Amino acid sequence: MSESSRTVTKARATLSDVAALAGVSVGTASRALSGTGRMRPETRQRVLDAVHTLDFRPSQQAPSPYTGRSWTVGLMTTDGIGRFSTPVLLGAEDALGAGKISVLLCDTRGDVIREQHHLQNLMDRRVDGIIVTGRRTDPRPPLEGVHVGVPVVYALSPSTGPADISVVSDDAQGCQLAIDHLVTAGHTRIAHVTGPAHHAAAADRARYTEQFLADASLQLVTGKPHFGDWSEAWGRRAAEMVLRTAPDTDAFFCGNDQIARGVTDTLRERGISVPNQVAVVGYDNWDTMTLAARPPLTTIDVNLTEIGRIAALRLLDAIDDKPTPGIHRIPCRLVVRDSA
Amino acid sequence: MSESSRTVTKARATLSDVAALAGVSVGTASRALSGTGRMRPETRQRVLDAVHTLDFRPSQQAPSPYTGRSWTVGLMTTDGIGRFSTPVLLGAEDALGAGKISVLLCDTRGDVIREQHHLQNLMDRRVDGIIVTGRRTDPRPPLEGVHVGVPVVYALSPSTGPADISVVSDDAQGCQLAIDHLVTAGHTRIAHVTGPAHHAAAADRARYTEQFLADASLQLVTGKPHFGDWSEAWGRRAAEMVLRTAPDTDAFFCGNDQIARGVTDTLRERGISVPNQVAVVGYDNWDTMTLAARPPLTTIDVNLTEIGRIAALRLLDAIDDKPTPGIHRIPCRLVVRDSA
Repeated sequence: MSESSRTVTKARATLSDVAALAGVSVGTASRALSGTGRMRPETRQRVLDAVHTLDFRPSQQAPSPYTGRSWTVGLMTTDGIGRFSTPVLLGAEDALGAGKISVLLCDTRGDVIREQHHLQNLMDRRVDGIIVTGRRTDPRPPLEGVHVGVPVVYALSPSTGPADISVVSDDAQGCQLAIDHLVTAGHTRIAHVTGPAHHAAAADRARYTEQFLADASLQLVTGKPHFGDWSEAWGRRAAEMVLRTAPDTDAFFCGNDQIARGVTDTLRERGISVPNQVAVVGYDNWDTMTLAARPPLTTIDVNLTEIGRIAALRLLDAIDDKPTPGIHRIPCRLVVRDSA
Repeated sequence: MSESSRTVTKARATLSDVAALAGVSVGTASRALSGTGRMRPETRQRVLDAVHTLDFRPSQQAPSPYTGRSWTVGLMTTDGIGRFSTPVLLGAEDALGAGKISVLLCDTRGDVIREQHHLQNLMDRRVDGIIVTGRRTDPRPPLEGVHVGVPVVYALSPSTGPADISVVSDDAQGCQLAIDHLVTAGHTRIAHVTGPAHHAAAADRARYTEQFLADASLQLVTGKPHFGDWSEAWGRRAAEMVLRTAPDTDAFFCGNDQIARGVTDTLRERGISVPNQVAVVGYDNWDTMTLAARPPLTTIDVNLTEIGRIAALRLLDAIDDKPTPGIHRIPCRLVVRDSA
């Protein structure tokens, strides 16, 4: 029988086993291990010998009665773990793991009952704090219902509670980078194609785009942003529409990379050279889209991993009684490839 | 000051606080809460009143000395959390959460030192078991180094240890579904374009494809599978190459959806109608690719969420001393859209 087979079936030593082997009560074994309580040195040594013999490991998860800390943090995602929350989770896990803090993962899938269930479970397990993240950049109400007696940091989707700690992407600065890049290159007839108007990510980026164009004494070539959905198919349709309305459009700034890819496909299929005749800038820097597009997309990187990392650091500060309430905006980065 | 602000800074009650308020020692408070030890009923009631007043919650994380179970499971990903491991994680989290088992997430990023660090941490926290998952379907060596005294289930990437428990996708059955679908529709001149030959996912699918074609008295139209990378760009290039070698190719079976999408792009741009002139079948059912492709892709769904769910159930069985060693293959599903 192999080692791996044995480890599958081997029962783990419990504190009762240790106590039995040492010939003491469970309470005495517990006090021997925690270093509390009076007992004869020989008794403590018998318990420690039993621990060694049985390979018993006292749990780090039990909160210390002296500090109240469990060195565990809850990571709660509110709408599945997807393309946006994954890098946030990884950034947070990396920052917390470096501090030897473990991460309890839970996914509420946008369901209130699941959220309450997970929240109660995190409280029962006495996590030191919670990071809440989601797919959308729309503000969300603070966690409530179950009494949340620990610090909470909201990543990507900010909390509407003004005293809460939120870490989000700086959409205004991201749009500024894109518009500056296009305007500096001499583009003046710029279209904006983006997602649904009821998503903050679409509405905010459209508003900032119009604002920064106005700062450069420009306006959108079609007079308004084009709201649709976040898909390539919408990018393809929207490009047709924009070119019909404003055939002299010289650049598209798109609300995400999928839309930008759809736009470049339509341009290429109509024999319009990107970037020579028309430039295209995307948003997100999702490499599956940006690298497969023809040509590869110039885009705005929203630094999702950094959002997760900073959220974790803000949480650690709050756990140390140094909370930083408010909305922390993480800067974006322009990634120049071939489309603009 | 708002409620949310207060919860950010409020210190959590510790067992010491409870003991102090009840006027007993920490040891007495502990015994009162665990129901062990002799004490006067009034003393126990004073402790319980203090617990109520301070909203103190005893940890569920401490392993019970009687069962040794912490009701916590480790979920370890070996190469980041990506498109493949995410649905596996979600399936496992769902199955475990329903059983009120919490999930400790750790990501080793393919780094041996990180793996040892996380493994030690999971052991120190006395998890009841571990699920290991990765991006690749290549077999991996069992966890080692740190003494792993709990059951382990390998999901997606099987363990090379024959006594270990692995849950993987049934690649043979997936290829059978694809080839049956094409052959039944009358296709006889089939090409296979896939990823790198040193990836099990590419080598296995190519081998099964040739085998099932042979069962139908057919062989690959170009005489061999075309290995490359998992990208759309490779799909586009490979389609050109196949059509040069075998202009009468009537179907492409591709090793993933990105390759299949690249193939359909080349076919469309050469004026070849999909599926009327040439059929295309992908692999993975990654909706970002299958739905954006023109036409939307017929593909093989590898049921990643189900792999995670079954891995969790196998782990719970093993924790209950009912291990099921060996490789468990989860069937795939043919998803018919417009490309074949």
